Amino acid sequence: MKKTVFRCTRCNKAFDANKVHYRCDECNEPIELERIANGKINKDNTMKQNILDRYSDFFPFLSVDEKISLGEGFTGLVESKNLADEAGIEKLYFKNESQNPTWAFKDRGTYAGVQHALKLGYKRIGTVSTGNMAPSVAAYGVAAGLETFVLVNKDIPDEKINPISIYGANLIRVDGDYGKMYYESLKIGKENDIYFLNSDSPLRVEGSKTIAFEICEQLDFSMPDYVVVPTSAGGNIRGIEKGFAEFWACGLIDRIPKMICAQASGCSPIVNAYEAGRMEIERLYDTETIAHAIENPFPPSGNQTLRMLEHNGGIAVAVADGEILEAQKMMAETGLFGQPASAVPFAALRKLRRAGCISGESSAVCILTGSGLKYTAALAKHNLKSEECPLENLSDFIAENY
Amino acid sequence: MKKTVFRCTRCNKAFDANKVHYRCDECNEPIELERIANGKINKDNTMKQNILDRYSDFFPFLSVDEKISLGEGFTGLVESKNLADEAGIEKLYFKNESQNPTWAFKDRGTYAGVQHALKLGYKRIGTVSTGNMAPSVAAYGVAAGLETFVLVNKDIPDEKINPISIYGANLIRVDGDYGKMYYESLKIGKENDIYFLNSDSPLRVEGSKTIAFEICEQLDFSMPDYVVVPTSAGGNIRGIEKGFAEFWACGLIDRIPKMICAQASGCSPIVNAYEAGRMEIERLYDTETIAHAIENPFPPSGNQTLRMLEHNGGIAVAVADGEILEAQKMMAETGLFGQPASAVPFAALRKLRRAGCISGESSAVCILTGSGLKYTAALAKHNLKSEECPLENLSDFIAENY
Repeated sequence: MKKTVFRCTRCNKAFDANKVHYRCDECNEPIELERIANGKINKDNTMKQNILDRYSDFFPFLSVDEKISLGEGFTGLVESKNLADEAGIEKLYFKNESQNPTWAFKDRGTYAGVQHALKLGYKRIGTVSTGNMAPSVAAYGVAAGLETFVLVNKDIPDEKINPISIYGANLIRVDGDYGKMYYESLKIGKENDIYFLNSDSPLRVEGSKTIAFEICEQLDFSMPDYVVVPTSAGGNIRGIEKGFAEFWACGLIDRIPKMICAQASGCSPIVNAYEAGRMEIERLYDTETIAHAIENPFPPSGNQTLRMLEHNGGIAVAVADGEILEAQKMMAETGLFGQPASAVPFAALRKLRRAGCISGESSAVCILTGSGLKYTAALAKHNLKSEECPLENLSDFIAENY
Repeated sequence: MKKTVFRCTRCNKAFDANKVHYRCDECNEPIELERIANGKINKDNTMKQNILDRYSDFFPFLSVDEKISLGEGFTGLVESKNLADEAGIEKLYFKNESQNPTWAFKDRGTYAGVQHALKLGYKRIGTVSTGNMAPSVAAYGVAAGLETFVLVNKDIPDEKINPISIYGANLIRVDGDYGKMYYESLKIGKENDIYFLNSDSPLRVEGSKTIAFEICEQLDFSMPDYVVVPTSAGGNIRGIEKGFAEFWACGLIDRIPKMICAQASGCSPIVNAYEAGRMEIERLYDTETIAHAIENPFPPSGNQTLRMLEHNGGIAVAVADGEILEAQKMMAETGLFGQPASAVPFAALRKLRRAGCISGESSAVCILTGSGLKYTAALAKHNLKSEECPLENLSDFIAENY
């Protein structure tokens, strides 16, 4: 078998896949595993597969230890006729990644990353996150018996830290510029033999491929026009596009959907560059949005997301907090309760359709990245209602009012 | 095809399955659908099935509308060697029901119940719950376009009510004896054409069968000795046992696991009766436990759970809040973060093993009923730790301390 290598996403420089690499030592751009152009799905009807078994042809560099699985992936794809009508498009689906073991899409990449760390003989893994990645890495790290380091911001409130620290990983509140921690952690990892699984680390991108693979299967290989991804660091949208590109290269689908990079207006460095026609993002300061899970002022895969959008023919668009909250409520009212960041794709679709950027005949899949329970404080922003009634009058009350 | 009927779980009186029934009009005991003794699994490798398609032979009275699915079921079964060692048994698995669309097992029964309501022509559904059932019924009700009524206690705090009301169902805070609401709701439902999907309604019990079906498949039809279920109303443990009994009657498995009914000491009406050798539960007052999700002082399926345990050869056992919290932490430290009620089975297993009630050669499956994010206030009861360090010293700090 041909030896798998990592390559720089910009200059194509090759790196050995049997070592840990994050960024090109010349470009400082993300590296990724070479695309697979020859693979098939290991279809199985036993309910005993995990995602890396089913798609093992697309992970040839891993020797998967199934015991590390926490049951990630195989999430629902839910069609909503109501929300398609709302957005003014033909067909609309939601890929519900909140059905993962730590209730966010991160578990796919964490699972792939932990397998790689184990293969390379690491005894320690780590991450930098105050969002969905922290509990995911904590959960998989302890499950795999690895010494696990989670670096969070010093000022993280208890309500956010407790659902991370319950997993018992080494949790370090770091005092300093949070924006520098991503790059610092890569150095710290090298010095302390810690495999850092950050937001856009190459194996995390590989894990996100399986979202695309499942969408293909769930839609019977008939591709939607658009796939809309809430975008922070850029690792997830890169991985999903890579998944479609690999299935296309293998002849499993006949076209690659256009990718829509959806950000919050309060923090939209990729959209800013896209709209200005630049191929390099600029660092933001003083960002503010309700969609904290995608509030990254300087996304490490920002430039590569711009390059990906260019060759894919995709779009980048930002939506305001009011639009995000409205989308969150509308999604919940069809049974899908996502965290604010997970409502950004649907808000983005509505905005693009209203602006005439996409046609009324379009079909789309929105990625619902994480559970609404991840950030219940956002619910205070909604004008949520309830009635009150004494038990003895309840039947009459219902008869009269509904 | 033989006509399906409901039967009283005590006197065996028959009721028409094409109407809605909850309890026997003579015994006031729960009714259930006749057991299926002739069925097979519709194995499929496409990733496009839902649970009622795969197990349709076991739901002959439903004509399933797949559009109502939110992607429920097909949850992970995770083996933990560490926790098996901790409990002192041979093999231990966790069925992770937090991977359902509203992050609790309730979605299976809600899905089956909504199908039944639609089949019978209902335009309205409802439930009585302040726990996991409320968001589940709200989500599926609005998804199906049904007018949906969720009756909660008047004094429910905002943190609990908001993740229910976000779905946009009719939410009514009822002032009165919450213990009476279950029975009152059945009357109110009849008066107002509302199909009430309460804790142990027959279709909810049917939905829970699919937990057993999946466990059978995931274990390759090789049965564990015990299946441990956190028990409140009794609907879930009844459904899981019924699922195993039906697969056994169909020759798909060669034995039915012993069921363990696990309750919290602060509210254990079924365990109280079991230990006293009574076949009828007594209503409790002034209950108190951290495991709120199973804090039902007068479980409507309590007596039937006792009858089921008797013919199944099962066990009922209660564990204290301290044991529950300890179990919750140990589970999280292997990657599985459940709400306190979901830690009751593992705590129960440890207690039974220590007491010599089960052997060291045992195998068991614990049902992890709902996400730890459902009740994060419980995390304040844990002594959760983190370190603090300035960014510039971080590498040295890690080198010195780990």
